[in-house]
Amino acid sequence: MLRGNAVVGQSGGPTAAINATLSGVIRGALLASEIKTVYGMRNGIEGFLKEDLVDLGQTFNDDERLVALEHTPAAALGSCRKKLPDPTDIAFYESLFALFRKYEIRYFFYIGGNDSMDTVAKLTAYAKTQDYEMRFIGVPKTIDNDLAGTDHTPGFGSAAKYIATTMMEIIRDCAVYTTRAVTVVEIMGRDAGWLTMSAALPRLNGVAPDLIYLPERTFDMDRFLDAVEKAFAVHPNVVVAVSEGIQFADGRYVGEGMQSGSVDIFGHRYLSGTARVLESAVKEKFGCKVRSIELNLPQRCASHIASATDLSESVEVGKSAVRAAVSGVSGHVMTINRVSDHPYKIEIGHTDVSEVANMIRYVPDSFINADGNHITDDGVRYALPLILGEVELTYINGMPEHFIL
Amino acid sequence: MLRGNAVVGQSGGPTAAINATLSGVIRGALLASEIKTVYGMRNGIEGFLKEDLVDLGQTFNDDERLVALEHTPAAALGSCRKKLPDPTDIAFYESLFALFRKYEIRYFFYIGGNDSMDTVAKLTAYAKTQDYEMRFIGVPKTIDNDLAGTDHTPGFGSAAKYIATTMMEIIRDCAVYTTRAVTVVEIMGRDAGWLTMSAALPRLNGVAPDLIYLPERTFDMDRFLDAVEKAFAVHPNVVVAVSEGIQFADGRYVGEGMQSGSVDIFGHRYLSGTARVLESAVKEKFGCKVRSIELNLPQRCASHIASATDLSESVEVGKSAVRAAVSGVSGHVMTINRVSDHPYKIEIGHTDVSEVANMIRYVPDSFINADGNHITDDGVRYALPLILGEVELTYINGMPEHFIL
Repeated sequence: MLRGNAVVGQSGGPTAAINATLSGVIRGALLASEIKTVYGMRNGIEGFLKEDLVDLGQTFNDDERLVALEHTPAAALGSCRKKLPDPTDIAFYESLFALFRKYEIRYFFYIGGNDSMDTVAKLTAYAKTQDYEMRFIGVPKTIDNDLAGTDHTPGFGSAAKYIATTMMEIIRDCAVYTTRAVTVVEIMGRDAGWLTMSAALPRLNGVAPDLIYLPERTFDMDRFLDAVEKAFAVHPNVVVAVSEGIQFADGRYVGEGMQSGSVDIFGHRYLSGTARVLESAVKEKFGCKVRSIELNLPQRCASHIASATDLSESVEVGKSAVRAAVSGVSGHVMTINRVSDHPYKIEIGHTDVSEVANMIRYVPDSFINADGNHITDDGVRYALPLILGEVELTYINGMPEHFIL
Repeated sequence: MLRGNAVVGQSGGPTAAINATLSGVIRGALLASEIKTVYGMRNGIEGFLKEDLVDLGQTFNDDERLVALEHTPAAALGSCRKKLPDPTDIAFYESLFALFRKYEIRYFFYIGGNDSMDTVAKLTAYAKTQDYEMRFIGVPKTIDNDLAGTDHTPGFGSAAKYIATTMMEIIRDCAVYTTRAVTVVEIMGRDAGWLTMSAALPRLNGVAPDLIYLPERTFDMDRFLDAVEKAFAVHPNVVVAVSEGIQFADGRYVGEGMQSGSVDIFGHRYLSGTARVLESAVKEKFGCKVRSIELNLPQRCASHIASATDLSESVEVGKSAVRAAVSGVSGHVMTINRVSDHPYKIEIGHTDVSEVANMIRYVPDSFINADGNHITDDGVRYALPLILGEVELTYINGMPEHFIL
């Protein structure tokens, strides 16, 4: 039995569920007799190095506050993008471990994406050279859903629910006029198309974008324009969902297409966005009304339409991380394994961080149609359970209550 | 007592509440003994001219369907942007009134914005030359809230609730990093700043954008950059809300700023958007991370976060329109008069269409601060009651139920 204090941090881009995972870690730590104090580090490992710590047990001394935290988007502890130096930088690791000793930290929980798992891997490796026992657990979060070793990641379900709902609403909006028009909706996902895939979910309710393009398939402009032409044969309002990360066959990002010609009032070049490039191409070819919409930040922070399944799983993953650590696990990343679809059932597990760090999990071939411009029923079936359930929020002045740490 | 049939149409841009108003008209018509059949015209007056009509009493024969309609964004009947010809175009009006006679239409309800009120005015004027009695009522809807003669318009409260909620979430998202960054959020409103004003509402919950710019004030780039500099003195994450319609002192739209230099891959110039112009200017001056976000269509179609106050008022306005018409009113537009703030209380009235058509109601001076870059407490007090209350939605497959006509 390893007694001492715990510290938890959040890192990387925010999500609607990352605070639910934080709440889970706090809940788990408060229950564990091995853990005396659970500290939060502000702005991830950067804040820890400045000893910018919060006693989370004191802050969250009642359940109501934890529930409010679970419903608050973005990282309540703040985030950072620091990548740890190589193990050869002994001075860095020595100062870090001096702080662990100073605060009697025996348990280290890091909630984040790929880079955060790299941090866990490096700390675990260095700890093995020390005569100070510690346990390191990576707790995954990313709306991108592209972490290896897990069926899905906390945060994805809420982002997917937002995208599916917003896509339905946009399709309704676009359907009101009878003149030809194309609407291109750009969805996050530089490497993997999981989020863009979720734009297909409204099909279950009888509507869907006409075309969906993921980065897992090479993008061809001529084939795209042909597909729009075919879609026009069905109805005048064509809606296209497109991942920001789609690339041409030569490896250029489609979003770079504008870069060469576009300059702003100061003469600067800038990256215009994938949807804008398609907007221009469609306007050129069809001369019709074209609109591009970037769903942008709300995809990762729209906690007002979070998935109840996602939030409750996120809390459970946090709690399980603490249970795993006190039972002796270290250098592992928490995972979600899907046991069955009907009924939807998961088990929370963990795997060695080397199986996860610095890898990307792509949308499988079976989820993408043969033409590479839509999602199969298998893909929709995969995503559906992750967006189910609505969260009962508290509203103050007509706006959702947020907990500000 | 004028007996006959009624027809209702929707026109102009969609909102999250325009179907609630349609439901109100249907509910009112089904209750009125003077009205036998209530027709819906598809795609506004354009559809009526093609006799593209739906028997709405038959379609909405139970309350559940009407409730689902009220929760569905965008115009269920479809919309159009047709402006009626001048009264001198006798042939046009003769063919239109021949259709009114054919379908025994005695009541005409047109749900829309400024252009739709113009349609009501023209029809009313022409009808006076006919020996066929008819009554015409305009039922206002616009997220822009810029219609004259009313305290606010159906559709505004839901858009304001979406903007306030999304702004809170974006501010949380932006707060996670410690490095300097500016986020510029572009909000709809070409002429009036009501929607952008609603970005100030989160202040009631302890957060707010640092700067808010409405089209009611001339925009000065140097003063804007100075204001950003001052905001940096308070915290590293500066959030700016800006109306798409802000203009420089010389009358140019700020969004035009990019037009001169920007060309796409095909050599076309395009309007880059107001937020993008500010993004460039901030990047030039501060060299920090800058992001621009266009809230875009979700502002007018995000019915999943509709205001309960807005939707119930929208239904009532529709019902009241029918009551007014059967009591003998014609050539009027429905209005909402605010009787008191505490408790919030309104009365639904109506005013002559000539008092409303082709006019714009601006945000009053008392709602804008002296520097022209924020909203006063009076402005926040005005908007608050309009976003209160949440709608209990039915979810199917994790997405809100929509009624598709």
